[in-house]
Amino acid sequence: MQGILDENFCDLGKETKANLELVAQTPSSALGSVRKKPTADDCHKVFKVLQKYNIRYFFYIGGNDSAETTHIINEAAIKEGYALKCFHICKTIDNDLRENDHTPGFGSAAKFVAQAFMGDNLDNRALPGVKINVIMGRHAGFLTAAAALARQYPDDGPHLIYLPERPFSMTKFVNDVKAVYNKLGRCVIAVSEGISDKSGEAIASKFIKEVDSHGNVQLSGSGALGDLLSKQIKEKAKISRVRADTFGYLQRSFAGVASAVDQKEARAAGIAAVKFACGGQYDNGSTAIKRAPGSKYMTWIERTELRNVAKETRHMPDAWIAKSANDVTPAFIKYAAPIVGPLPQMGRLKAVKVAKK
Amino acid sequence: MQGILDENFCDLGKETKANLELVAQTPSSALGSVRKKPTADDCHKVFKVLQKYNIRYFFYIGGNDSAETTHIINEAAIKEGYALKCFHICKTIDNDLRENDHTPGFGSAAKFVAQAFMGDNLDNRALPGVKINVIMGRHAGFLTAAAALARQYPDDGPHLIYLPERPFSMTKFVNDVKAVYNKLGRCVIAVSEGISDKSGEAIASKFIKEVDSHGNVQLSGSGALGDLLSKQIKEKAKISRVRADTFGYLQRSFAGVASAVDQKEARAAGIAAVKFACGGQYDNGSTAIKRAPGSKYMTWIERTELRNVAKETRHMPDAWIAKSANDVTPAFIKYAAPIVGPLPQMGRLKAVKVAKK
Repeated sequence: MQGILDENFCDLGKETKANLELVAQTPSSALGSVRKKPTADDCHKVFKVLQKYNIRYFFYIGGNDSAETTHIINEAAIKEGYALKCFHICKTIDNDLRENDHTPGFGSAAKFVAQAFMGDNLDNRALPGVKINVIMGRHAGFLTAAAALARQYPDDGPHLIYLPERPFSMTKFVNDVKAVYNKLGRCVIAVSEGISDKSGEAIASKFIKEVDSHGNVQLSGSGALGDLLSKQIKEKAKISRVRADTFGYLQRSFAGVASAVDQKEARAAGIAAVKFACGGQYDNGSTAIKRAPGSKYMTWIERTELRNVAKETRHMPDAWIAKSANDVTPAFIKYAAPIVGPLPQMGRLKAVKVAKK
Repeated sequence: MQGILDENFCDLGKETKANLELVAQTPSSALGSVRKKPTADDCHKVFKVLQKYNIRYFFYIGGNDSAETTHIINEAAIKEGYALKCFHICKTIDNDLRENDHTPGFGSAAKFVAQAFMGDNLDNRALPGVKINVIMGRHAGFLTAAAALARQYPDDGPHLIYLPERPFSMTKFVNDVKAVYNKLGRCVIAVSEGISDKSGEAIASKFIKEVDSHGNVQLSGSGALGDLLSKQIKEKAKISRVRADTFGYLQRSFAGVASAVDQKEARAAGIAAVKFACGGQYDNGSTAIKRAPGSKYMTWIERTELRNVAKETRHMPDAWIAKSANDVTPAFIKYAAPIVGPLPQMGRLKAVKVAKK
């Protein structure tokens, strides 16, 4: 958006193929990013700029906010009579786009979360206590749920998983942690940054008050929620060694831990958008990753209406959340594992005990 | 320590070779860990237990606190007349053991930090602002310094690096950030958790007051320092988009991002300790990784006295810290790069600008 308004264009035709391939292996957005919901005035300016350069194709990569932007631009273009093919391309680590089985970005971020929990579980096993990890995902728990992929042995963490799809009760949380701690002598916990109480108020929003132009409260980038939960466990469960980490921006940009399936599908989504736009059949739309039912992993990309993916978010289906509201179900693991791909195998000593003398 | 006191022994001879190889690829301590400085009474109990099982070799893996424990046990064994060969094996992600060029654990943790900064630099480039990352290392800045390995293009972050070896001035910090931000429109910063003011008081210790039995203030596992620094930048440099992450426990345990050199040397240190202990020449000591001067990377392991590595820590040499006190020198990069090994290459669009119409 900002790039168009500033007439800040670059010519991707001047890139070498080798460099584009390297960029495809690189995290983050090579073209930059912006948090900007276009106003009617912005739209008018956008079309004036596009007309000057005779630009007739608009591709916008991102999540539901980006889909909303694409939808706004498309509606405004029709209203103003500016011929423009408007396509949104699915991409969000939050995995919360409707119409999509999953979205590019999620598999790689989920892989980071799983590998982080694998190591952290072992760290916690070596020096026991309670460990709380706060994970991104304001309204949808997919990325937090991915922590479950870290489990390889029956007593591996995360032992508890709290998603924004279920109301968070501090009393239940403390009791859950106590129960695990009494059983295992330790407890590793995955918590979504977006956990909210029964009234819908985010537990973290009481502490951080920064709002972006889409009206989202900024929750990442601070240890406030983890610190709050640690304090509760120390005070109410009387456990002394309690630590919290907030994964923050690392989970959406870490270099060198991408899912191969994710990379492949991200590229496929871009190709599909261009085909939809150039095929003559559609003037607008969004790419949606679909998946065959059954155990064999097979995906394809369909075109969907912009209004179907814009603004509203998708949540974890009930069938993937345990009745206890503190874990995922095996159905979620079955869903997420092929998107993330192979994970490193963690070793553990048999540690055959020597009889006491 | 605790395992001996509890007579909680396991027989490593019962492990399969395949399983041991898998454990060697796995982060964290497979045998567990403890923060315990043995008292005279503990030592006496330890020898009673060891005698019962006729255990005559004591290997203790860790940093300067573990070396101190080994030193205490060794001195007490001599005093009490219990024949015991006491060896400390070097290992700490902090890299702050004296006598060692570097220590097992550092290379892998440094690799994590470098890859985290590679991605985070791109995230910050895509959506500009100020980004502060708080890194482990209470008294030594080696791991924080490793963030510099992330730089591949001239304007890549981290743009500023603050080590505990130099007194931290909030005024200078704010001015440094302003200068980078005015030049690049963004700023990525690496800060050690242990940064202290001129009087030697840790900036973070004003906020967190938990002390382990070695007398170390607990600094990790909370966003307090990052939040504090963010607030200063927002208020004093008048920059609105400021974010902070605390890498926390991830950097010392992340699965799947180990340095191959580090893994090789960790194993070599263990082998060397056993050879020293069984060679008949020494009754005690520690393993120290030595390195040939010059550009060809070559290391070997020597035995050193326990008192040489116990308790006191090693710091970043002056030659590796920039005069400006907010960066490292090329000499540090030359030092650290071969220990970390190959890093993923980040792509960047040439982004040839289209002339404005």
